[in-house]
Amino acid sequence: MKWVRYQSDGKTFYGILEGDKVKEVYGSPFDSYTESGTLHNYESIQLLPPVNPPTFYAAGINYEKHVREAAKLLGTEPNIPDKADIGYRAPNALIAHGQPIVVPKDATEKVQYEAELVVVIGKETKNISESNALDCVLGYSVGNDVSERTWQASDRTMWRAKNSDTFKPMGPWIETNASLEDMITTVRLNNREVIKFATNDMIFGVQKYISEITKYITLYPGDVVWMGTDGSSENMKAGDICEIEISGVGTLRNPIASE
Amino acid sequence: MKWVRYQSDGKTFYGILEGDKVKEVYGSPFDSYTESGTLHNYESIQLLPPVNPPTFYAAGINYEKHVREAAKLLGTEPNIPDKADIGYRAPNALIAHGQPIVVPKDATEKVQYEAELVVVIGKETKNISESNALDCVLGYSVGNDVSERTWQASDRTMWRAKNSDTFKPMGPWIETNASLEDMITTVRLNNREVIKFATNDMIFGVQKYISEITKYITLYPGDVVWMGTDGSSENMKAGDICEIEISGVGTLRNPIASE
Repeated sequence: MKWVRYQSDGKTFYGILEGDKVKEVYGSPFDSYTESGTLHNYESIQLLPPVNPPTFYAAGINYEKHVREAAKLLGTEPNIPDKADIGYRAPNALIAHGQPIVVPKDATEKVQYEAELVVVIGKETKNISESNALDCVLGYSVGNDVSERTWQASDRTMWRAKNSDTFKPMGPWIETNASLEDMITTVRLNNREVIKFATNDMIFGVQKYISEITKYITLYPGDVVWMGTDGSSENMKAGDICEIEISGVGTLRNPIASE
Repeated sequence: MKWVRYQSDGKTFYGILEGDKVKEVYGSPFDSYTESGTLHNYESIQLLPPVNPPTFYAAGINYEKHVREAAKLLGTEPNIPDKADIGYRAPNALIAHGQPIVVPKDATEKVQYEAELVVVIGKETKNISESNALDCVLGYSVGNDVSERTWQASDRTMWRAKNSDTFKPMGPWIETNASLEDMITTVRLNNREVIKFATNDMIFGVQKYISEITKYITLYPGDVVWMGTDGSSENMKAGDICEIEISGVGTLRNPIASE
């Protein structure tokens, strides 16, 4: 099942996407819902990010090749994490599928994509085992963890490097029927394939992260966990189009614009 | 004016505190509101954190003495920040005035308070100058940036060190009439004064942080910016009571409990 979130008549709705139609609902996938009876054409709705997360978690470093290639670029030793320590991103930066990633006017040319699997939490959860961890997952989406590399290196935190307005495209929807083992992540920049990797080839998997987080932290419905990216990225510039496909989940496409 | 947020009959309300009475409103201080006509006794309402922030910003290091004393403890050189780089905390960890700070069962004895001024944003704001920055501030509250120091030193991020459930007491209310220059922050542990400092004696002030953030990031109504703490803290243990007063704003009091 594919859940979309969108604006209609100035209000925010969830809907179920079937083919090219969206069945509008009252309520949300996170509590109860009923179909309103209204049908929309998918092409005519104004998509929003599929959820506005109460807390926005991000694994950051979670693929070995990404760590090794980043270290090579910086001339440092690769530092493979030995624990599933979660990080954070900021909801202000979320945009929907199709909306432009706006490069701040004083950014350098090093504005890069990072293709990430997004785990959407469906149920309030504390102290869950790895083997039961997927029970609290509503579904999956696609995220682009856009990063300005010079700020990432120069600033004390990753506030503007990773969280400038529009730097967190997420969507187009939440797919509830998908298997982690089957997913392949592909990035295309202006239709040219630039990265391809097995999505689940993580240092610490979805189950491990959820189990570790919930030893200390309650996960709530609508929370998202972005799972990190593999490989090394290219720069994006105004006029480019960045497309991230995770097979079985969906394809997130955003144009790049200048401020 | 003092804004409280509370639960009544299973619903969440904002109210205006006058003396020992709370005037219930429909709506919120962040948009429009009307008084409902219902009055509560302040002592009988179930307080919530005064806002559930869309994005939860935190300055982290923002007082020189705190940097110097932390460096002395670690045997390192003090590293005074030269830019107002904002950081983040997580909404899952917020609790209200009066609720217990629960020490996780595997935490060390180094669970410490940090007394912080909380700036509550009232208006959507981008690209604001320092001189106009306070125009977007609805008011102020008090925060306790509870920290487990061994995890803060050992983990790749501050996820459990600073964001374990219940580690972010905030309240008791939002005070809209307060002057930064007049505020004094006082911490009392079991009624013994342990820290006292001029709240506004920051490396980078409220206006500077807001102006810097909004060069890249839109602030939204309800966002909070925690401004950092001064001095060095003592450990807290189950049975203790930690009280943070910011004169002209309010007093946040929380008992410590074990898991």
